[in-house]
Amino acid sequence: MTGKLYGIGVGPGDPGLMTLRAKEILERCGVVGYPVRSEGEGSVAFDIASQVVDMSSKTVAEFVFSMNPRDSVREKCREAAINRMCSLLDEGSDIAMVTLGDVGVYSTYMYIDEEVRSRGYETEIVPGIPSFCHGSALARQPLMIGDEGLAVVPMAKGNTHLLMEAMEGFDNIVVMKAFKAVDTIADMMEAKGLDPSDAVVVSNVGMEGEYIGPLDRNREYGYFTTVLIRKR
Amino acid sequence: MTGKLYGIGVGPGDPGLMTLRAKEILERCGVVGYPVRSEGEGSVAFDIASQVVDMSSKTVAEFVFSMNPRDSVREKCREAAINRMCSLLDEGSDIAMVTLGDVGVYSTYMYIDEEVRSRGYETEIVPGIPSFCHGSALARQPLMIGDEGLAVVPMAKGNTHLLMEAMEGFDNIVVMKAFKAVDTIADMMEAKGLDPSDAVVVSNVGMEGEYIGPLDRNREYGYFTTVLIRKR
Repeated sequence: MTGKLYGIGVGPGDPGLMTLRAKEILERCGVVGYPVRSEGEGSVAFDIASQVVDMSSKTVAEFVFSMNPRDSVREKCREAAINRMCSLLDEGSDIAMVTLGDVGVYSTYMYIDEEVRSRGYETEIVPGIPSFCHGSALARQPLMIGDEGLAVVPMAKGNTHLLMEAMEGFDNIVVMKAFKAVDTIADMMEAKGLDPSDAVVVSNVGMEGEYIGPLDRNREYGYFTTVLIRKR
Repeated sequence: MTGKLYGIGVGPGDPGLMTLRAKEILERCGVVGYPVRSEGEGSVAFDIASQVVDMSSKTVAEFVFSMNPRDSVREKCREAAINRMCSLLDEGSDIAMVTLGDVGVYSTYMYIDEEVRSRGYETEIVPGIPSFCHGSALARQPLMIGDEGLAVVPMAKGNTHLLMEAMEGFDNIVVMKAFKAVDTIADMMEAKGLDPSDAVVVSNVGMEGEYIGPLDRNREYGYFTTVLIRKR
């Protein structure tokens, strides 16, 4: 019997926020894997899953997806990773690939799924709680109500214009990957006539440097920082 | 001991997509409740939770939040519902209020939480998988990758301009509450030079009339319809 590939969102960090289905599949799969940029890197998603599922009898597999600037190196690397997955599936192993948050939100798994499926294997995707839903719960602030829209914008070079537009048109904005840009976001809010202290920063939840509270320019924020803006 | 109020997102419909924490809290709470517009309405969220948690020994409580056009009627109704919750908490009952999808996405629970907390009670919000994450998983299509943004827009009177803007500025758009508006969305995509058949419609998952596939003007869609647009 050929194995099946699962792409599993394990949620934002709290192991209790894994789904029942994620747990059940992880318990059943002989191989639990995750993509890395270089060998031995480890995985936050795997660490979360390990708090719920006993991994001691599993084959734990890192699959290297290089971020080398050279296309040919990246391509060769991807090809090798997919080949190895398919070999494991041919041997009859079910593989669970774990992803932080939701599989649809900034994860590379969708590419893997498409590639493996195109080679004729069965796959399944299990969604997870995205970090911004957890942020909304912790901040006790809706992402949207009534007929409101929501814009999710990651801080990145070239996204300033998009964020400005979002602040213009949308009642609710989630700024992801915001850890270095909290000051910039505050400036942009002021430029749009919004009060930065109305924004809520959700940072490093459950980790060192956890902060959930109003935007404060005088703080330093950890790597996992999301800013929730809700117009009053 | 005064009880505690929990707001619980039970996910988009598949009971396996409930979180471990949601299940654990629901098993522990003596009262499981949900808001209704009128008595006896029932709750999809409660039906989902019932497939995972034995409700036979629980007090199941409907809390009426009227949608009456008269402010005074709505206010009186809300006040009565919150009072009843607080009485149950005073008696020492823990209450789990269940919500379809995520608590932050178009749910009235955040209002309840704020009100009950302001009266001095302890509360906790447990996020759930929003329908658009499930849609992305079923459609095997990312919500966003790399540095892309995502716009979530509900179809509603007055949101046409917002949806047009979203199609202009964002690489990815989720259109919620789309069941009556699939044709309109297709027209708008064409006006923006996008191919409607590139959009994916996710409709009535796990229910009668389930459809997950390319946008097709010649179909009828069920009440729970979401359209995922991803620019190529």
